Amino acid sequence: MAGKLYGVGVGPGDPKLMTLKAKEVIETADVIAVPVAAAGEKSTALSIAEQAVDLSGKELLEVVFSMERSVVKREIYRKKAAETIQAVLDEGKSVAMIVLGDITVYSTYMYVYRYLKECGYETEMVPGIPSFCAGAAKAQVSLVEGNESLTVISSLKNKHVLKEALEHSDNVVVMKAGSGMNYLPELLEEEGMSDKTVVLGNVGLADEYVGPPDKDIKYGYFTTLIVKKGGL
Amino acid sequence: MAGKLYGVGVGPGDPKLMTLKAKEVIETADVIAVPVAAAGEKSTALSIAEQAVDLSGKELLEVVFSMERSVVKREIYRKKAAETIQAVLDEGKSVAMIVLGDITVYSTYMYVYRYLKECGYETEMVPGIPSFCAGAAKAQVSLVEGNESLTVISSLKNKHVLKEALEHSDNVVVMKAGSGMNYLPELLEEEGMSDKTVVLGNVGLADEYVGPPDKDIKYGYFTTLIVKKGGL
Repeated sequence: MAGKLYGVGVGPGDPKLMTLKAKEVIETADVIAVPVAAAGEKSTALSIAEQAVDLSGKELLEVVFSMERSVVKREIYRKKAAETIQAVLDEGKSVAMIVLGDITVYSTYMYVYRYLKECGYETEMVPGIPSFCAGAAKAQVSLVEGNESLTVISSLKNKHVLKEALEHSDNVVVMKAGSGMNYLPELLEEEGMSDKTVVLGNVGLADEYVGPPDKDIKYGYFTTLIVKKGGL
Repeated sequence: MAGKLYGVGVGPGDPKLMTLKAKEVIETADVIAVPVAAAGEKSTALSIAEQAVDLSGKELLEVVFSMERSVVKREIYRKKAAETIQAVLDEGKSVAMIVLGDITVYSTYMYVYRYLKECGYETEMVPGIPSFCAGAAKAQVSLVEGNESLTVISSLKNKHVLKEALEHSDNVVVMKAGSGMNYLPELLEEEGMSDKTVVLGNVGLADEYVGPPDKDIKYGYFTTLIVKKGGL
């Protein structure tokens, strides 16, 4: 009988923000699938998990999701990742694929899930704390209150995406904002939002930053902005 | 020395979706503050917490947040709740106020937090799994992928709020949708979104429902809709 596939969100960084269920599933799964952008790369999700669960003696399976520009090339990597996991499931072993944050928010797991679901394998998703929830808690601001709305956007290709979100929503979260931090502080200034914005860099990790937008800081990839039109 | 105030999200229902940190804080806090809508009411947050933590012998403090229509009356309840907690903090005891879901998403904790922060007490927020993340995981759909956006809205006063969100966002979550379920299935049909919607009723609780919108079902207050314009 084929093994079961679990997609497990391990939260944004602090191992204590893993759920009891995530810990249990990682503990009991036969194999932990670890997504990386390049072979041999250190995985943040794995370093979180191993601080909460004893992984010594556990079988680890590296799956590469290359960040190629070409969608065709990325699809090849995704299919290969799914097939790598499939081979293990066919041995009757259960596999827990771990991802940073939540399993349903900008997660690489979805590609593997769709392929293996289609093939008929038993699957289950275990949610995790999204970085924006952990970031808001760290900054002690609400994400959304009363009758307000919240919009989450990512990977800003241009200024228009954030402008439109600010126009239609009371609160805006920008994820993976690192690459946009060369123009975002200025844009927020223009929109009158500078003092209504919290920047969260690598929350829960060693080089965590929580504070106002600052043009002179070099922010990492996992930078999150929380913009509250009604003020912080 | 005054005690410290913790705001703790216990997740949407399944006690295993509590974080390791939430469990630890509830275990070690001197007093657990339990928000209810009326004195003596059973608290869902408490019933979740007590399935994961042994609360026998723990001091419980009921704080009433009445759902009065009048904002002035609600403010009186909020201030009284904050003052009730303040008195305990002043005895040097730490207090963990528990809420359903995440502490930063539509949470009553914010009112207590603002008042007591202003008064100078030490405070900390512990995030929890929001119901929409747990619901998406349960339905095995992504909330947001690639360059997509996600908008979260609540307590629909009129159809326009959902229509506008659908116009500007790739994915829309409607929280506390129970009261709107008399017109939402029809509206979703009109917008061509019926087969792109998952309804999640009381996820993690005994009477959980995960499925398409259905006019003939009576949905509870904690009903969540996930609408994915690109399809499920």
